[in-house]
Amino acid sequence: MFNKTISVGMKKEASKIVGVLLVLVFVCAIGNTQEPADYVNPFIGTSNFGATFPGPIAPRGMASISPFNVAGPQNLPLEKDSRWLSNPYVHENTFLTGFSHVNLSGVGCPDLGVILLMPTTGQVETDHLKYGTTYSNEIAKAGYYSNNLDKYNIKTELTASIRVGVSKFSFPKGQANILLNLGLGLTNEEGAMVKVVSPTEIEGMRTVGSFCYNNPESAYPVYFVARFSKAAENFGVWKRPSKYDGVEAEWMTYNGKTRLMENATRMVVGASIGTYFSYKFDQPETVEVKIGVSYVSIENARENLEKETANKSFNTIYEETYNKWNNLLSKIQVDGGSNDDKIIFYTALYHTLIHPNTLNDFNGEYPEIKTGKIGKTQGTRYTVFSLWDTYRNLHQLMSLVYPQQQSDMVKSMLDMYDENGWLPKWELNSTETFTMVGDPASIVITDTYLKGIRDFDIVKAYNAMLKSADQIENNPLRPGLEEYINLGYLTTNFGGSVSTTEEYNVADYSIALLAKSLGKDDDYVRFKNRSISYRKLFDKNLNLLRPRNPDGNWYEPFVPEAGANFTKNVGFIEGNAWQYAFMVPHDIEGLIKIMGGKEPFTKQLQKVFDTDQFDMANEPDIAYPFLFNYIESEEWRSQKIVKELVQKYFQNKPDGLPGNDDTGTMSAWLVYSMMGFYPISPGEPLYTITVPLFDRVTIALDSKYYKKKELVIERAGNPNGTIEKILLDERPHKSFFISHEELVNSNTVKIILK
Amino acid sequence: MFNKTISVGMKKEASKIVGVLLVLVFVCAIGNTQEPADYVNPFIGTSNFGATFPGPIAPRGMASISPFNVAGPQNLPLEKDSRWLSNPYVHENTFLTGFSHVNLSGVGCPDLGVILLMPTTGQVETDHLKYGTTYSNEIAKAGYYSNNLDKYNIKTELTASIRVGVSKFSFPKGQANILLNLGLGLTNEEGAMVKVVSPTEIEGMRTVGSFCYNNPESAYPVYFVARFSKAAENFGVWKRPSKYDGVEAEWMTYNGKTRLMENATRMVVGASIGTYFSYKFDQPETVEVKIGVSYVSIENARENLEKETANKSFNTIYEETYNKWNNLLSKIQVDGGSNDDKIIFYTALYHTLIHPNTLNDFNGEYPEIKTGKIGKTQGTRYTVFSLWDTYRNLHQLMSLVYPQQQSDMVKSMLDMYDENGWLPKWELNSTETFTMVGDPASIVITDTYLKGIRDFDIVKAYNAMLKSADQIENNPLRPGLEEYINLGYLTTNFGGSVSTTEEYNVADYSIALLAKSLGKDDDYVRFKNRSISYRKLFDKNLNLLRPRNPDGNWYEPFVPEAGANFTKNVGFIEGNAWQYAFMVPHDIEGLIKIMGGKEPFTKQLQKVFDTDQFDMANEPDIAYPFLFNYIESEEWRSQKIVKELVQKYFQNKPDGLPGNDDTGTMSAWLVYSMMGFYPISPGEPLYTITVPLFDRVTIALDSKYYKKKELVIERAGNPNGTIEKILLDERPHKSFFISHEELVNSNTVKIILK
Repeated sequence: MFNKTISVGMKKEASKIVGVLLVLVFVCAIGNTQEPADYVNPFIGTSNFGATFPGPIAPRGMASISPFNVAGPQNLPLEKDSRWLSNPYVHENTFLTGFSHVNLSGVGCPDLGVILLMPTTGQVETDHLKYGTTYSNEIAKAGYYSNNLDKYNIKTELTASIRVGVSKFSFPKGQANILLNLGLGLTNEEGAMVKVVSPTEIEGMRTVGSFCYNNPESAYPVYFVARFSKAAENFGVWKRPSKYDGVEAEWMTYNGKTRLMENATRMVVGASIGTYFSYKFDQPETVEVKIGVSYVSIENARENLEKETANKSFNTIYEETYNKWNNLLSKIQVDGGSNDDKIIFYTALYHTLIHPNTLNDFNGEYPEIKTGKIGKTQGTRYTVFSLWDTYRNLHQLMSLVYPQQQSDMVKSMLDMYDENGWLPKWELNSTETFTMVGDPASIVITDTYLKGIRDFDIVKAYNAMLKSADQIENNPLRPGLEEYINLGYLTTNFGGSVSTTEEYNVADYSIALLAKSLGKDDDYVRFKNRSISYRKLFDKNLNLLRPRNPDGNWYEPFVPEAGANFTKNVGFIEGNAWQYAFMVPHDIEGLIKIMGGKEPFTKQLQKVFDTDQFDMANEPDIAYPFLFNYIESEEWRSQKIVKELVQKYFQNKPDGLPGNDDTGTMSAWLVYSMMGFYPISPGEPLYTITVPLFDRVTIALDSKYYKKKELVIERAGNPNGTIEKILLDERPHKSFFISHEELVNSNTVKIILK
Repeated sequence: MFNKTISVGMKKEASKIVGVLLVLVFVCAIGNTQEPADYVNPFIGTSNFGATFPGPIAPRGMASISPFNVAGPQNLPLEKDSRWLSNPYVHENTFLTGFSHVNLSGVGCPDLGVILLMPTTGQVETDHLKYGTTYSNEIAKAGYYSNNLDKYNIKTELTASIRVGVSKFSFPKGQANILLNLGLGLTNEEGAMVKVVSPTEIEGMRTVGSFCYNNPESAYPVYFVARFSKAAENFGVWKRPSKYDGVEAEWMTYNGKTRLMENATRMVVGASIGTYFSYKFDQPETVEVKIGVSYVSIENARENLEKETANKSFNTIYEETYNKWNNLLSKIQVDGGSNDDKIIFYTALYHTLIHPNTLNDFNGEYPEIKTGKIGKTQGTRYTVFSLWDTYRNLHQLMSLVYPQQQSDMVKSMLDMYDENGWLPKWELNSTETFTMVGDPASIVITDTYLKGIRDFDIVKAYNAMLKSADQIENNPLRPGLEEYINLGYLTTNFGGSVSTTEEYNVADYSIALLAKSLGKDDDYVRFKNRSISYRKLFDKNLNLLRPRNPDGNWYEPFVPEAGANFTKNVGFIEGNAWQYAFMVPHDIEGLIKIMGGKEPFTKQLQKVFDTDQFDMANEPDIAYPFLFNYIESEEWRSQKIVKELVQKYFQNKPDGLPGNDDTGTMSAWLVYSMMGFYPISPGEPLYTITVPLFDRVTIALDSKYYKKKELVIERAGNPNGTIEKILLDERPHKSFFISHEELVNSNTVKIILK
């Protein structure tokens, strides 16, 4: 299919010699071998609440296009208004109502999924329940999506540059329409503006926000400019006003009814508006539509469109985006493994390269957080920091493979601190959503710094961490901080008291590590001590952590199994006592001690898996499989469980993710697990080793940050065996742990199985 | 009060020598004598459904400011959402919720009344039902309005240039807020956009339209830019989203609640939005706010603001607007009469100078009608053509006193024809509202042309008239035209069949007159014949017009008295058989004949008045009082009735208009009636004469169109008497009718009473 697309491109551009040559080079480059980008299957995660979308996006793109099939009773039970649904596309749904141009990948809350482009034929129909259609022949690849709209016999093809979504619609002859629906969307925010600038251009905005049904006062606009390759013969705007129910309703024959506003060229605003561009084609024709977006202004959206895509064909843009993906994905080369192994691996790596994503416009401008000002960056301003998820492994993967990106992410976090006085917690398009608990920014920054990525202002970062760790009044990041400091833990005065205590402990441990590195010895001692206060919540009778009431007594009645599957549970956020019992990655040695030693610890940890308390789909326990490495001669358990989990939960199919991808956190888990090592203690530059699922993994290292050019992980011996020994540059490595420094300064890590 | 305002202005500008001099000149100019503008009482018509507003407007201004007191249960029964209410202000209401910046004067349908500015003190409150207040010390003058907001101890002062509303708020010390409410409004359309550009500037738009609950697909934006003389210390946007009632509502703690979005500087859209600018004043302070508007774009609104008012103080702008008013009003000087007579006269003249109003921006741009394009005019593009009303007398007054304006109005009408292929009917801001019946544009244009105002393309105008008079299919102006042409009248197949037939007759008569003037003799005969077809609806038994069924029979049951007070009535629009019986001003001689001669005619006409069937508040019968002039020796009746009507219905008080001013039509009736003559047959350059209510009326004539510099109407003899004789330049004039040509070429019309 890919080559077919290209050859179509060649025909169309036959007269443009340069274009043809470019295409030929492109075809040659990718025609002979399977490139990493060719293994990407964007359908993975589009079912089972993976919440990824199959449409095209450039690496860390601001714009993306997703087929939108979550609206309308035709899509029940996975219908956006009938439940908490966080994705614009569900693989098993069948009723498509357009293509949305800003989308979140792998999140747990609905937002974005707006600016819906929809090609139709025949009379203009503006009700998505009427113009929606089933579709077939879906194809999804890195940077490319295509399907056929059954009702209209229209072939759609989609691609995207960083800030522009590009669509190519192949219409049959007759009346063709391209609708831009600004009412429909995944977000629960409402309100749009649209202005038809000319028969080839539309500008406007759509309100988005209230991620996780939270923080509505920070709802904000996404601006856009849409350009059409063919001028509309007829155009207009539709608007469905809200229904008036006063006495005047009797005079309003049009009350609540959609109106078509022909030739409307001035601004139209409303909750339910859109535009239609219509054509009469004497023969089959294609129309390309480019939609540039911006979170700053319409002018910037237009500039983004022009600078990234003006005068470029659909195929050229696709080629560029494909090459960007391939370059990034090629930083890790894998040998061995099945085709499906490669597919799930590269698709996971692809999913880790979507968020955090670019927020700044082509000219560097971006909306600052909270201030209302427009900032300007020299590099990349990143957004979508789902830090409660990503502090655990995604940023560690970035530091290793894409350290420049990780550095820019840390800089973006520090810019946020400059702007609104606080590091981010769950930042989304320069709004702080305050989703989830803990204070994960410190962990990410410390982890980055201690791995030698230091081209940012660490003193500022340290001060920012201290502020959130110490400021008791008006601290939006650490609710309950006063209790935490005074008692060592949060009481049931606060929701998720145990979870939050553990998160604060983990963060404080990172601050301690950084303090030590910066020579702040007093702080080191203070935060090191703070970091183990979770122990006060350890109930020896249960060998689990347990919430305490404000009077210090254990919370009763206490059912350790309660709280699974996101049901509410006193003391715990998104999990139960089992799923949080071991979530002290920085103090597993201490936990072993208070649990009574190695044997009880192993038993209790194994029990999590044996009694089905392990949740692969959520973050608190995702490091559990690796924790047997802390117990000498029990490491085989980690090796076995990790491999089993990979095989059970990660597959080359739409439901091939265990649940929400969590902006790439599940995918990062998979990438590390398949490579045979894992960043076991966030904040600490340390990995623990399991069995690689490939014969060989070659990681290209960025010369700006690392001395070696590449790192090779090799597996040898019985491929179904367990680890016999580990060789570092052919010398025995006596531990199942390896520091980041050791790792990146080795040529080869050889893992020999028996 | 006026002088006080000026002296305040002097103090403020003490350092600006030029400013002071200007002010001094201004004070001298108006300090010594009562100028015409000083007689304007903008409160006239603000009760009894006059539908005028008391706030400032420049002559034919696009922007105006009205105190807005028609929202909220506090204002029942004259509350905008509880009934059909067409004005932003009602004098007897008490609860003020802001100052609206675009307003219609004297119309019968709600529209505009948006962009509401409201100063408050204390905490920001965005609910108008909570921040609204009673007020006191109202002052209204041409170009100026002031009151005190009781709840806040704020003095408000308002003025306006053509496209900019200017407010000056005097705050006590403490927290002061200036709210801009874009949700509240008189229009039934919804939807606004706002963007805080800086702490001194806001830009945005508000949707308006659906005038008379009609034509919603032409709803359109009014754009604005607001500039504040002092930078806000805090600002933000509020938005009340519509209430969500799906399952997600349970997660939306903020569902349907107003949110305050602090520091929001990007676009916010919604049905219920606004901005707040807040200050903390250590001492009493004033803030001036200038709001420029445009129907084209925000950029034009900003340019309008800058070109008209930048760097000008409130007082300077007021002075300029005052002078504009005074110059125009001074075109008619009256001597004699009481102070109240002068007040009602000049206020009426003021009301005729509000609509039609300016549509084009400072740079000449304006929205074309229907095309979606932006046009550009060299002169003035006028809008708000309530032609069913104004064809009867207002344009005739313009042709006499302000012929340049009338010429530009005709040019605007012809531009509309160029743009959308049709002359206007009831045009409002480049939308055709299709309100009322008939085809009045032909009458206005013919009337203008035949009065010698000919600097427009009469051939185009004539073709435009023929099109609406002859095109049977797809004719938006003359529904029922086929029946009308075939039968001579509309049958009850069409609403208002008698009224519409008469209107078409009057229009056809104008076309006949113009045809004759242009030498189109065939057309002259054809339209002359068409113009008297109303006679087929004359029921000899009743001596009234009566609807016919499609089969030709009289409509039964027929109650001539039915249909008064705007109740529905088969055959008649806004009136009954009595009120339409004589509405054939072009064929009164013919009507006299079919009514059986002079005596039955006189009797029947007198009966209208004697049986209380005469409605002073609506247009169909407003020429009736003058019709006795057609009967020799009965002219005294006209003289008596006109004088009585003036005294009864037109007074120096808020309810001093008989009803809707109808964009100045009632006021034009008063102006003419008080001057002692009236344009008796619209389209025909003819006046009929009654008793002037002043000793002397001097009309300045525009040298571009008229040879004489001025025309004097003098009354002599017994002031309570009836007309004994009429002298034209001292020569006896043997008729109670006088042609326009005779009139404007006379120096003096002396009316001698006995």
